Amino acid sequence: MRIPTLAIVGVGLMGGSIALAARRRGIATRILGVDQQTNALKQARQQGILDDVSTHLQDVATAADVILFCTPVDSIAAGVLEAAAHCRPGTLLSDVGSTKAAILRDVQGRLPKGIEFIGSHPLSGSEKHGLAHANAQLLEGRLVLVTPGQDTSDDALSRIRDLWLALGAQVRVMEAEEHDRAVALTSHLPHLLSSALAGILPPELRDLTATGFRDSTRLAAGHPDLWSAIFRANAANLLAALDRFEEQIQQFRQALLAEDAAALDRLLRQGKKIREELA
Amino acid sequence: MRIPTLAIVGVGLMGGSIALAARRRGIATRILGVDQQTNALKQARQQGILDDVSTHLQDVATAADVILFCTPVDSIAAGVLEAAAHCRPGTLLSDVGSTKAAILRDVQGRLPKGIEFIGSHPLSGSEKHGLAHANAQLLEGRLVLVTPGQDTSDDALSRIRDLWLALGAQVRVMEAEEHDRAVALTSHLPHLLSSALAGILPPELRDLTATGFRDSTRLAAGHPDLWSAIFRANAANLLAALDRFEEQIQQFRQALLAEDAAALDRLLRQGKKIREELA
Repeated sequence: MRIPTLAIVGVGLMGGSIALAARRRGIATRILGVDQQTNALKQARQQGILDDVSTHLQDVATAADVILFCTPVDSIAAGVLEAAAHCRPGTLLSDVGSTKAAILRDVQGRLPKGIEFIGSHPLSGSEKHGLAHANAQLLEGRLVLVTPGQDTSDDALSRIRDLWLALGAQVRVMEAEEHDRAVALTSHLPHLLSSALAGILPPELRDLTATGFRDSTRLAAGHPDLWSAIFRANAANLLAALDRFEEQIQQFRQALLAEDAAALDRLLRQGKKIREELA
Repeated sequence: MRIPTLAIVGVGLMGGSIALAARRRGIATRILGVDQQTNALKQARQQGILDDVSTHLQDVATAADVILFCTPVDSIAAGVLEAAAHCRPGTLLSDVGSTKAAILRDVQGRLPKGIEFIGSHPLSGSEKHGLAHANAQLLEGRLVLVTPGQDTSDDALSRIRDLWLALGAQVRVMEAEEHDRAVALTSHLPHLLSSALAGILPPELRDLTATGFRDSTRLAAGHPDLWSAIFRANAANLLAALDRFEEQIQQFRQALLAEDAAALDRLLRQGKKIREELA
């Protein structure tokens, strides 16, 4: 596949990595970038990652065949609507946000004829952020969840699928609501737990942490603004995942109070079995 | 320092790693091993990690100058008392268990004259277990928490400190109760959370986990028997650490319910700041 002009909105870890992969794999003739940070734009231009850059979304919207929004989840829908007003018919818009239903709801039915938006979520994050950490392999072999809306055409779905495949990723198509419920448990809950655990470590115990604590809290180093937006966009599902988690904690608590070795063994074996099936 | 005869009771990940490091650093003239698994003993003997092996604790107790118990926490005190009955005066006994107060309580005042036990806990675990994963670098640069009892002599404290330093570790001396409170939060709580999180992942979501979920649940792969014993030995402190954790979760929950961006930001920043100070 070859896209004449690919635009990346938000040139950070994910946007930069996609641009790098697109360049390396020859997926786009021109790659344009939009960001509010002129430093990132300048750097991406100098490194040859982007062919042209702008701080104005509409500058690239008019020129692009595909636009990927790699901005925080609470700014994607507004960006999509703004860009769509300036796009040529046939332009395909997508994103990489970690929540999907709210964006789809805000965008659905509000796009000009011939312009489509379809949600995407590459499962390949990092607690790091910014263009400095971008790498062309970030998507390789990773799964991208694609969430069409009720009006999504077969053509748009197949174009976005081909783009992610060409970038080295795998694709699974899901409904946006199902996506949000799933990642509440697989991604947003681990982030919340990691942050809460890191948050309660008193200063005098910091020297006593080993690799276990560090691995368990790696996610806590993620960007607070990005994660605050994700948590708010998916609050109901995240609270439901937290409820499920706290039922399990409650079982541990009862087993500890009762000094119930068999119950503790059963709970620990359950976690070990599932964890080892992931490895 | 040079120990004429060092005995390792429990030739698994930690016991095997200590024997390897002691060998490589020339810390002991002879290294003996005790285990119930004859396979592990045979393998350690064949690889030259141990000079002599036995399945009977008393065989090595009579010969050893220092005995390190690398067995599950619920079998250490009994092993120490059994070995002590056969030791020569001047023999020093220690362990590597993740809890300290209960062992000290069970052993204190019950050792023959001239035999001392002093607790040790190297902060360098792994979710892996068994001799196959042993490595001579496991302790290098890691902190070993040493917990003397009220009857511990200066000589015994200085001998155990010298041993850990000679093995490449660092040493901090703490009271056993303080140790157990600290590691309840820095080690046992992360393990419990990791296991609980892994335990609630439904089969249909396994493919949707990325590095975040995997890192957050790495500890869950630990040995259930070892961890069940640790949890039971430190249940009160672990429950207190869990209470503290759940207060923090409660704050996240309220912020999510109220869609309170400022509160979420504050909580996420708190976790990020502390996590980054560990790195």
